[in-house]
Amino acid sequence: MLRIGHPASLTPDQLADFPKGIELVPIPDNLDHDVEIDVWIPDAFPTRAMRVWPHLRGVKLVLCLMAGTEWIPPTVGPHVTVCNARGAHNVPTAEWTLSAILAMLKQFPLFFDIQRSGQWRRRPEASAAYAAITGDTRHYHPPVMLEQLTGKTVLIVGHGAIGQEIERMLEPFCVEVLRVARTARTNPVVHPVSELDALLPRAEIVVLILPHTPETHGLIDRPRLALMRKGALLVNAARGPIVNTDALVEALQAGRIRAALDVTDPEPLPESHPLWNCPNLLITPHVAGASPRFLQNALSVVNAELRRYINGEPLHNVVQKAI
Amino acid sequence: MLRIGHPASLTPDQLADFPKGIELVPIPDNLDHDVEIDVWIPDAFPTRAMRVWPHLRGVKLVLCLMAGTEWIPPTVGPHVTVCNARGAHNVPTAEWTLSAILAMLKQFPLFFDIQRSGQWRRRPEASAAYAAITGDTRHYHPPVMLEQLTGKTVLIVGHGAIGQEIERMLEPFCVEVLRVARTARTNPVVHPVSELDALLPRAEIVVLILPHTPETHGLIDRPRLALMRKGALLVNAARGPIVNTDALVEALQAGRIRAALDVTDPEPLPESHPLWNCPNLLITPHVAGASPRFLQNALSVVNAELRRYINGEPLHNVVQKAI
Repeated sequence: MLRIGHPASLTPDQLADFPKGIELVPIPDNLDHDVEIDVWIPDAFPTRAMRVWPHLRGVKLVLCLMAGTEWIPPTVGPHVTVCNARGAHNVPTAEWTLSAILAMLKQFPLFFDIQRSGQWRRRPEASAAYAAITGDTRHYHPPVMLEQLTGKTVLIVGHGAIGQEIERMLEPFCVEVLRVARTARTNPVVHPVSELDALLPRAEIVVLILPHTPETHGLIDRPRLALMRKGALLVNAARGPIVNTDALVEALQAGRIRAALDVTDPEPLPESHPLWNCPNLLITPHVAGASPRFLQNALSVVNAELRRYINGEPLHNVVQKAI
Repeated sequence: MLRIGHPASLTPDQLADFPKGIELVPIPDNLDHDVEIDVWIPDAFPTRAMRVWPHLRGVKLVLCLMAGTEWIPPTVGPHVTVCNARGAHNVPTAEWTLSAILAMLKQFPLFFDIQRSGQWRRRPEASAAYAAITGDTRHYHPPVMLEQLTGKTVLIVGHGAIGQEIERMLEPFCVEVLRVARTARTNPVVHPVSELDALLPRAEIVVLILPHTPETHGLIDRPRLALMRKGALLVNAARGPIVNTDALVEALQAGRIRAALDVTDPEPLPESHPLWNCPNLLITPHVAGASPRFLQNALSVVNAELRRYINGEPLHNVVQKAI
């Protein structure tokens, strides 16, 4: 009978839809003896999951509840197949991206300050902030003014399931979408990474939603940040190390660009890190993919993959095939 | 020759598309003598516009640069036709509405606090805040969690051009849209105001985007706020006096509902007003309709109406017909 190890925190109710004829093995966080299982559903927190791994024996397949699995292959080695929960986080992560873009364009960080100060008369600061970051100092009428997303040019770097979901949510805003991914495609046109430098200067908003791999580590470095337009908005909904943090801090402190980050490098960001206090920046502490429906979504993706494994069908979400 | 009075702050460039064969009469803010004009384009700021009105003679038509014109009929009296700039503010106001909904669901006010404190470890406060306001205290995994807009039920009160634009921008989020307006309609179904009380308890998000009239003054009063679901979000992108402020302050302080307000009553909100410090609230100081394209958009709406007037065609945006 196939043995499925899962976080002991999952309730029988949450596992009720899993296939019959398997043995469900709860794995507590403080596991202190060896356990034989065939399939491992690790805890969504890598630190908890890595703590139990040394006690697991016989694991052939890891079914991860998260989209990001970069910590798993180094932990479990190459003789185990690893699948992610592709799809489970698409909607919340894409929603966070839209939320972050709109909050930055509409200057909500400034308006929170104004709200806290209780000073309605500070409203013209929004126009001053817009002029300062974009360099657009034309006289506006009325003098308080917010940007529009409508009509802007958005570069989406990474065009997997979440990138496509972001594009779908951008549709009502009639933006021009430019796309970059590892593999060039047509219909719609997706440019190869080699064309990134040519595309960066065209975008008013640059969204990072690509996996963290050796190739994408530090992809957005000092020269590429310098290629971004004055006042452009960099949105990182992917992984912190895809952006060079020192270079980003410099560009923000110089008032050259804006940024919205759900992920940072290092992470968690230490209390004294200069990034916290950079201007024109929104940081959320790696929460974009979270949702009240998260576990339900992730478990149903894992459940479907498990049924394919039991039936000997090809798996859909393999990120590492066992050698 | 038709004489068109316009704010002296408008540049010849901005008026370049206006029809030939008319006389453009710049009206300075500090006008101190009588001026004969046929058509008046008032300054977008009512206080400035009202200051010059006593010196204007012969005005038959007012072409307003704003969507909200409630101050004009009491100022100019019933013998003048008044048109608004319907359409010019649709996109920015609808964008603000989406931005405010997403910022509140994604708890950006809390994350701004966390960012300012530099304490990544405060992230579970997002789940606690969600549980406190919605009453949904199920155990989540992972413990940090943000709501989704996708799948929620949104009640749009007012279904004019901006309300329809908001609905268009909500489309990718697969929300259930309920509509209320003065006049019931079909295709899509728009309910009459008399059904508002029956619809309020169904909505997780209630958007106000209706004109301020004697009928809508105080529409959202204490009993109607009490009909809203626990944790529901009230969004006012219309006019402050449509909501009873005292009742709203009570509901917010009791932790019953959330709100996002671009408009308040009174306005500007005095520094000591209790609304500023209510929990679960976002206030922006009446900026939703503003945009770098505002004047360009508004002038092109006014220009089109002016050409219809010159050609004797029916006007499109009449809010008061001269008696």
